[in-house]
Amino acid sequence: MTSQTELNLAPLPALLIDAAVEAALKEDLGRAGDITSQATVPAAARAQAVLRARDDGRVAGLDLARCAFRLMDPGLQIAVVHGDGQDVRPGDVIAAVEGNARAILSGERVALNYLGHLSGIATATRALVRATEGTKAKICCTRKTTPGLRAFEKYAVRAGGGINHRFGLDDGILIKDNHIAVAGGVARAIEAAKGTVGHMVKIEVEVDTLDQLEEALKIGVDVVLLDNMTPETLAKAVALIDGRAVSEASGRVTAERVPAIAGSGVDFISAGWITHSAPCLDIGLDIDIEPGP
Amino acid sequence: MTSQTELNLAPLPALLIDAAVEAALKEDLGRAGDITSQATVPAAARAQAVLRARDDGRVAGLDLARCAFRLMDPGLQIAVVHGDGQDVRPGDVIAAVEGNARAILSGERVALNYLGHLSGIATATRALVRATEGTKAKICCTRKTTPGLRAFEKYAVRAGGGINHRFGLDDGILIKDNHIAVAGGVARAIEAAKGTVGHMVKIEVEVDTLDQLEEALKIGVDVVLLDNMTPETLAKAVALIDGRAVSEASGRVTAERVPAIAGSGVDFISAGWITHSAPCLDIGLDIDIEPGP
Amino acid sequence: MTSQTELNLAPLPALLIDAAVEAALKEDLGRAGDITSQATVPAAARAQAVLRARDDGRVAGLDLARCAFRLMDPGLQIAVVHGDGQDVRPGDVIAAVEGNARAILSGERVALNYLGHLSGIATATRALVRATEGTKAKICCTRKTTPGLRAFEKYAVRAGGGINHRFGLDDGILIKDNHIAVAGGVARAIEAAKGTVGHMVKIEVEVDTLDQLEEALKIGVDVVLLDNMTPETLAKAVALIDGRAVSEASGRVTAERVPAIAGSGVDFISAGWITHSAPCLDIGLDIDIEPGP
Amino acid sequence: MTSQTELNLAPLPALLIDAAVEAALKEDLGRAGDITSQATVPAAARAQAVLRARDDGRVAGLDLARCAFRLMDPGLQIAVVHGDGQDVRPGDVIAAVEGNARAILSGERVALNYLGHLSGIATATRALVRATEGTKAKICCTRKTTPGLRAFEKYAVRAGGGINHRFGLDDGILIKDNHIAVAGGVARAIEAAKGTVGHMVKIEVEVDTLDQLEEALKIGVDVVLLDNMTPETLAKAVALIDGRAVSEASGRVTAERVPAIAGSGVDFISAGWITHSAPCLDIGLDIDIEPGP
Amino acid sequence: MTSQTELNLAPLPALLIDAAVEAALKEDLGRAGDITSQATVPAAARAQAVLRARDDGRVAGLDLARCAFRLMDPGLQIAVVHGDGQDVRPGDVIAAVEGNARAILSGERVALNYLGHLSGIATATRALVRATEGTKAKICCTRKTTPGLRAFEKYAVRAGGGINHRFGLDDGILIKDNHIAVAGGVARAIEAAKGTVGHMVKIEVEVDTLDQLEEALKIGVDVVLLDNMTPETLAKAVALIDGRAVSEASGRVTAERVPAIAGSGVDFISAGWITHSAPCLDIGLDIDIEPGP
Amino acid sequence: MTSQTELNLAPLPALLIDAAVEAALKEDLGRAGDITSQATVPAAARAQAVLRARDDGRVAGLDLARCAFRLMDPGLQIAVVHGDGQDVRPGDVIAAVEGNARAILSGERVALNYLGHLSGIATATRALVRATEGTKAKICCTRKTTPGLRAFEKYAVRAGGGINHRFGLDDGILIKDNHIAVAGGVARAIEAAKGTVGHMVKIEVEVDTLDQLEEALKIGVDVVLLDNMTPETLAKAVALIDGRAVSEASGRVTAERVPAIAGSGVDFISAGWITHSAPCLDIGLDIDIEPGP
Repeated sequence: MTSQTELNLAPLPALLIDAAVEAALKEDLGRAGDITSQATVPAAARAQAVLRARDDGRVAGLDLARCAFRLMDPGLQIAVVHGDGQDVRPGDVIAAVEGNARAILSGERVALNYLGHLSGIATATRALVRATEGTKAKICCTRKTTPGLRAFEKYAVRAGGGINHRFGLDDGILIKDNHIAVAGGVARAIEAAKGTVGHMVKIEVEVDTLDQLEEALKIGVDVVLLDNMTPETLAKAVALIDGRAVSEASGRVTAERVPAIAGSGVDFISAGWITHSAPCLDIGLDIDIEPGP
Repeated sequence: MTSQTELNLAPLPALLIDAAVEAALKEDLGRAGDITSQATVPAAARAQAVLRARDDGRVAGLDLARCAFRLMDPGLQIAVVHGDGQDVRPGDVIAAVEGNARAILSGERVALNYLGHLSGIATATRALVRATEGTKAKICCTRKTTPGLRAFEKYAVRAGGGINHRFGLDDGILIKDNHIAVAGGVARAIEAAKGTVGHMVKIEVEVDTLDQLEEALKIGVDVVLLDNMTPETLAKAVALIDGRAVSEASGRVTAERVPAIAGSGVDFISAGWITHSAPCLDIGLDIDIEPGP
Repeated sequence: MTSQTELNLAPLPALLIDAAVEAALKEDLGRAGDITSQATVPAAARAQAVLRARDDGRVAGLDLARCAFRLMDPGLQIAVVHGDGQDVRPGDVIAAVEGNARAILSGERVALNYLGHLSGIATATRALVRATEGTKAKICCTRKTTPGLRAFEKYAVRAGGGINHRFGLDDGILIKDNHIAVAGGVARAIEAAKGTVGHMVKIEVEVDTLDQLEEALKIGVDVVLLDNMTPETLAKAVALIDGRAVSEASGRVTAERVPAIAGSGVDFISAGWITHSAPCLDIGLDIDIEPGP
Repeated sequence: MTSQTELNLAPLPALLIDAAVEAALKEDLGRAGDITSQATVPAAARAQAVLRARDDGRVAGLDLARCAFRLMDPGLQIAVVHGDGQDVRPGDVIAAVEGNARAILSGERVALNYLGHLSGIATATRALVRATEGTKAKICCTRKTTPGLRAFEKYAVRAGGGINHRFGLDDGILIKDNHIAVAGGVARAIEAAKGTVGHMVKIEVEVDTLDQLEEALKIGVDVVLLDNMTPETLAKAVALIDGRAVSEASGRVTAERVPAIAGSGVDFISAGWITHSAPCLDIGLDIDIEPGP
Repeated sequence: MTSQTELNLAPLPALLIDAAVEAALKEDLGRAGDITSQATVPAAARAQAVLRARDDGRVAGLDLARCAFRLMDPGLQIAVVHGDGQDVRPGDVIAAVEGNARAILSGERVALNYLGHLSGIATATRALVRATEGTKAKICCTRKTTPGLRAFEKYAVRAGGGINHRFGLDDGILIKDNHIAVAGGVARAIEAAKGTVGHMVKIEVEVDTLDQLEEALKIGVDVVLLDNMTPETLAKAVALIDGRAVSEASGRVTAERVPAIAGSGVDFISAGWITHSAPCLDIGLDIDIEPGP
Repeated sequence: MTSQTELNLAPLPALLIDAAVEAALKEDLGRAGDITSQATVPAAARAQAVLRARDDGRVAGLDLARCAFRLMDPGLQIAVVHGDGQDVRPGDVIAAVEGNARAILSGERVALNYLGHLSGIATATRALVRATEGTKAKICCTRKTTPGLRAFEKYAVRAGGGINHRFGLDDGILIKDNHIAVAGGVARAIEAAKGTVGHMVKIEVEVDTLDQLEEALKIGVDVVLLDNMTPETLAKAVALIDGRAVSEASGRVTAERVPAIAGSGVDFISAGWITHSAPCLDIGLDIDIEPGP
């Protein structure tokens, strides 16, 4: 089991979490707040609750869940049992929450929505990472993320043992087929990029054929994206590259196909589905309520 | 094929879309914008592009995609071929975009991230709707949505032919097991709710057994949520209700199991996975770029 | 005297208060802050102050006033004597504030503006509630609220003993004359509404005549709004309804006219003026300042 | 009748209006929008409507009402008949709106809430202005405004023929009794103020007695606030001032009492109730809807 | 050395600081945070650091620096040695920071960017103040400030011993040449201004010649702005004014020229460059890091 | 003269400009707007104005200035004569503005504050670029920018012919002395960085000595920052690097010293003062007003 420490998983800065979680709570509270709990739960009632995994997976998003509870009531106490980056089995307690019952019930759904979504991404990433164990290939993500949640989803990929690709359009050059078409070829597109960006920006180019690859290597790039190639072609590409660039494979990267892709010797394998289509990890909140005095 | 008109699918107010899409674009543009297109695509180059389905599904989210393109450049022209609520097959053109090439390329990912995510939800909803055709049961959603996207995901459920449950904690009473426990029973929880809410709020209570159901019906509620019951128990519950309340079934609602659930005669069937775990519908942007003068 | 506990008046979630009060303070502080206190009150001076009623009324808005003081200085101590939902007479102390003198003086106006405005609404509501004591009619509010303050004003109505109607356009169907006109009659409008909304949304229809009422009852609605009818017509309407729907009367609901309206046997009476035209309750801040060391 | 031109009533900058009106619309639309109009009004139906006064008063707030309609649909056409600062009688048309029926109905309440509230303030101000005609006294407002609406309410005071006092704590020095107490007397408070503020800030001091007044005049201030004095004392104060400062009277300024106050010869009379307790001016929206093609 | 206390320098309200500093931190943290410190500094490492002046100057902005550190980690302890408004020499410690090492390193740049920028303005202001010592002239600022930083830069001017002019377009009348041209002369422009603004707003008029000055004095204004006059003409202007208005000189106000300008007897001298062109004061952060346990 | 086209200067996305300029205008307009123009300029008066350079420099920021005018009145017409990235001499017209006079006057200061500030940075950058012409060294910026303006100031550096370094803490690794100290040496810090970041992130390390440089080169980095070295030591460093990394020099980079630094053969020279201490370029707005009809 890989723990958060082993992953060297740095937590998300609180500054990047608070505003998002507050907005999510407001989305759920609407204008009148939690009218069910207001009506049925005494204001002073206290409760103990546990967040419990109902399926096998990898945890991610506890800081967001904690933030959801704390924003409802700063007095809530949250104790983590299985932290971000740790594996859980059905029935495992992820964390315990204690304090005002209304606050716990009102924050529950937002906390679970974040935790289930991000743990689902970490679990999907873990599946690809495990399927490529023993190879040099690392699993990485894409910009195919849910609008508004990119930093969180990229964090979940790290919690799953994956590596982050670009965070946006501005922190790396990735020249794709459309850019190549308008620039008039691979070489001219790369030259155009080299002419404008600074020395702290990496340049990656997407190639579909070994000819394009050769053209890219000749002029020189940091990374080549080998898109939709068979494992055999990928192996040829890796041989052709021969250490002159970092290699990344993409296209139909399922858990079934990924071992063969990794076997080609590529450095990185990127998959969009781990962020855009990973199913939620099933996590529930079990609660004990004591009526207030 | 069910069209948007047949669905009577009212569009989302622009006011509820603009700020979200603007934030999503800023998330992708970061501080420096699309440095790849700035470097490789001439400022005056124009392009024609089509958004094309690569899989079978139901479209939802075109207004968000349109907004993404328009915020990059108000001059972009978008023509819709298959609108929200319409079915598509692989290869079908959903919409065409024309105008400044950099603007199209810079807005592409955000447009597709929204469109793929929401169409995925519409497609999942459609699957349950189709699987219950011929019964009286209607498919509805839950509050298990992606934080920040609730209004959009609820809209996608409507595009898929589904019905919306509560939008938040404030627009309906839903008394769950935890509320019942602290209130001291089903009857007392319902009475507490009736004592505080206004005449425009519906009251639903979750029951796990036929005994609880009877207790709820005696005191009277608008809706009963029959949680995790077998089709046989559901049928008994429907008979017991006998028109005194609206019935809603929930729990493990897959496409395989849903016909049997619907066969019990319940009025509504709610499923969380259609919003929290529906895979993205695969949609791509194919582009023709003409270099500027 | 009805206390907050008797009213079961749930407090507004802090999350829904903070941003509004912060904006109100910034509106008052402008760019340079409280230049008078900065010039004339030593930075370390401390003060004790009381918020005192100068008129007879019902308190509402103390959490907003408290928030205004706390945002100026988290060290300010506020002790409540007459809380939200409690009645005060001229001279009664509502709350005491103690701490940094500049902070108290700088927060005073925003605290009083909220407290006076919301207590005014609670007091107006109380007047109608008292005038209908002994009848079954409950007093409720409308959407005729001050822009930006709806959740707070609806809360003040509850503090006054009233009931909340819809919070917005989205959490209940209210079919008015204009909708009926375009839909082609009462029955068709109600049918259109029933065809689209979910099972957790109530439907109310406004009727001006007994004929329209009969049409509405035939097709079935949750609530009928009997607009601008005389007490005699209202009584006939109530007899006609005969328990088939909840009844609500509206139109020229003054303290003088409301007993007669209530005497007709309607369930609810709604009044716009309690939120849009209730005069401010006169509350002052009396202060003792001790110069700092 | 005093027209806007005669008043030289400069419009509020659009920049200061848009965000507030957008927030007000979102407050009303909630997460799902206007579900009644979506259900009962065809998407393409068009309507003509008029905003009509139902009471006697002075108009203020048309730019906010216009903004509410335009934000719902930029295609709505609004034609003003009686503009801000103009007087209306019951039945007078204030403005006409034409365009998409759903947009008009969805924007109606926010438009009327602003227009009624601000016209109420203009009407209240007009009452005091009229009651002091023939005297030199000008009517002005205070900081006793509704949180979030100060700039709009101050504008409504101008529309009513009044003058604006300070907009906040930062754009003028107003030394009150509490400041005097802690500073150790009127003279020392004024000296402290003069020692810190720049040459573009006016200094006003509140005095309760003629002795305090004399002390203030000796050291010199721009404005003296004569608080809660009888008309007789006010007249003595005016004589004592003898042009050495601008005079402002405050305290229990009703339409009945204001002529006597003005008769004392003071320059300004300030009243809090014109902003915090003015009843809404009754304005309705009458509509003709044509079903869409 | 003039200390903060001697200056009677009131601190900026925290409410006006927090949002700006939070935005500045987010600008620097981007989507992924401080990836260098995350990679190289253990999560539990602690550090002690000092903010040290590397040049001679006047300190301003410590509350913003403190806020930057505290927002990164509320547990950081900051001890001030030379506060805002105090003078420092190269090598002087301004403040010490202690706590989590990552938090200190991540907040460092934003803290220093504010502190260096605002101390630069205070230092520039101090230079003009010192160059006019012994005269009656006070140094004041203009609206030529960096967008978004006006309140902070005006505060820095106060820390430098200067006086604040208007904070914006709304808190004082300043009639310039363009206004005079369109109004049809100095007198008509002043009359127009007097006709609309309230009694708490000062009126200043810019004059370029002694003739214009005479025209302004005849009708009466609070302040005259003597623009781009030689010291000789300024002296004549002061004589002509003879106490009838406050005088302010502007135009090419360098440290070299300012003694001659002040020698003319003007009351105020305003300079734009102290806010828009003052060089940053060089301040560094020296750090001792202890690895975590 | 280098034009924008020659620089291949991509414009800032409008999306990244609008919110900042709107906030800057609100900062200047305050709560009451431009009360001077409202009082003295007729509402319908029109004007023509030119933005004119009063000093020698390089233009940057026209899109922000244009935005300021357009947000005051979308009807204002702006024609650019000398665009961003172009050189101007005293008296040169940069752009012409035509339309409503009040709008031009109210937007003037914000437009000039942006334009002067950013043109000042472009001009300072140009000075260093010119001083290193004929060498291979490129001038680049740092993160020593004004809080809130980083993207704009980085753009101004590009307009001056410079290259952008990192935009924030998240888009590149820069290991400084403090990181090295805590990591236990250059090699261990670099290894730690390589172990966590993805393949699209460059790694730069700051070295103070040739020994440290050798250690860094042995383990391999993308860029070495040679801090505060003499030209002689820089030359030795460049020889030692021998193409194995990109070289960047920093420390006391003035226009006088930069030719010697560039002469050492380094690839990049970074300077903080071009963003934090560049004086404003003097630009004025000359106006012709025609009174309205």
